[in-house]
Amino acid sequence: MPQGKPTNVPPDGLTTRQRRNRPLLIVHTGSMKGKSTAAFGLALRSWTAGLPIGVFQFVKSAKWRVGEENAFRALGEAHERTGQGAPVSWHKMGEGWSWIQRGGAADHAADAREGWRQIQRDLTAQRYGLYVLDEFTYPMKWGWVDVDEVVDTLANRSGFQHVVITGRDADPRLVAAADLVVEMTKVKHPMDAGQKGQKGIEW
Amino acid sequence: MPQGKPTNVPPDGLTTRQRRNRPLLIVHTGSMKGKSTAAFGLALRSWTAGLPIGVFQFVKSAKWRVGEENAFRALGEAHERTGQGAPVSWHKMGEGWSWIQRGGAADHAADAREGWRQIQRDLTAQRYGLYVLDEFTYPMKWGWVDVDEVVDTLANRSGFQHVVITGRDADPRLVAAADLVVEMTKVKHPMDAGQKGQKGIEW
Repeated sequence: MPQGKPTNVPPDGLTTRQRRNRPLLIVHTGSMKGKSTAAFGLALRSWTAGLPIGVFQFVKSAKWRVGEENAFRALGEAHERTGQGAPVSWHKMGEGWSWIQRGGAADHAADAREGWRQIQRDLTAQRYGLYVLDEFTYPMKWGWVDVDEVVDTLANRSGFQHVVITGRDADPRLVAAADLVVEMTKVKHPMDAGQKGQKGIEW
Repeated sequence: MPQGKPTNVPPDGLTTRQRRNRPLLIVHTGSMKGKSTAAFGLALRSWTAGLPIGVFQFVKSAKWRVGEENAFRALGEAHERTGQGAPVSWHKMGEGWSWIQRGGAADHAADAREGWRQIQRDLTAQRYGLYVLDEFTYPMKWGWVDVDEVVDTLANRSGFQHVVITGRDADPRLVAAADLVVEMTKVKHPMDAGQKGQKGIEW
């Protein structure tokens, strides 16, 4: 395990504490499983550290991630009951964003843009300590949200707000702006051998 | 997202249900962060699915993973209180395994072997639905536990028990035996830029 020792220290004049406490922009990309999974694993640590968590799922199916969602709802309830950890807010585009009072829209592009607008509002309000923008690379890839605007907003966010973005084909501009980028690559997958997805593992 | 459709179906005579409900041996390896993180993210889904979780940490420092540990202890308590999810057992080699009544030993090799013996006993007893063997590749790499014995035990485990093993340099025999292997590779890491590890992100 790395013991938190940086390999080199830049001549930026920052103290160790300032450098330690810098909010990060993290990207989990690549063609393999584990991108979102690792983001939610990261959120476990943020929860324990008392960072309020905001999850924004830019996916269509409500079936996916229900395992993580239920566990984090339980953690949010544990926080309300005992004060341990942090509050958790979970927003799904697939069911229409929770803050919008209308039925399911057919326009996914408009839904994605509305999700991004809310994230911008929350960043301005410094509402969360960790933002999980799950599968957010796709609205960027498909041109539903403007990549330059996303990068600019994130680069200029105020306060102490970590952001983790997951999904394949992360835009090079996003990768350039990120502090940490992990690529999940496939070595072997059970679906290659005819294995189907199963409860408790894939969802 | 993959919708659980296998790319090809082997002529093994299994029904879809049998194929769906096959216990998996999963390996998260590679040089980059996210191996353990993704394993604990996976465990969130297992928890929601009601699979009892056994975590065995083959690491020295108790500092690492404290975020995940606290969150999973909260989930275990939520299960005891409400019946939701599943029980969680968390064992650490770094503090001496919980089932051993003695002070901290200096012999890490013996500690690792004792951890593996307990895992064998638990597999025989079918105690858990998901085993997280965190950093278990290292005792294998260093010759503290016999790789062939590990592979043989896992290949012949009974019942319905998923196993996920994390750590760098997974042995080729373990990779060959696994159903799912993910390699986390580094694209960019903040420690390259002098960023130190920080609470809520690295632990």
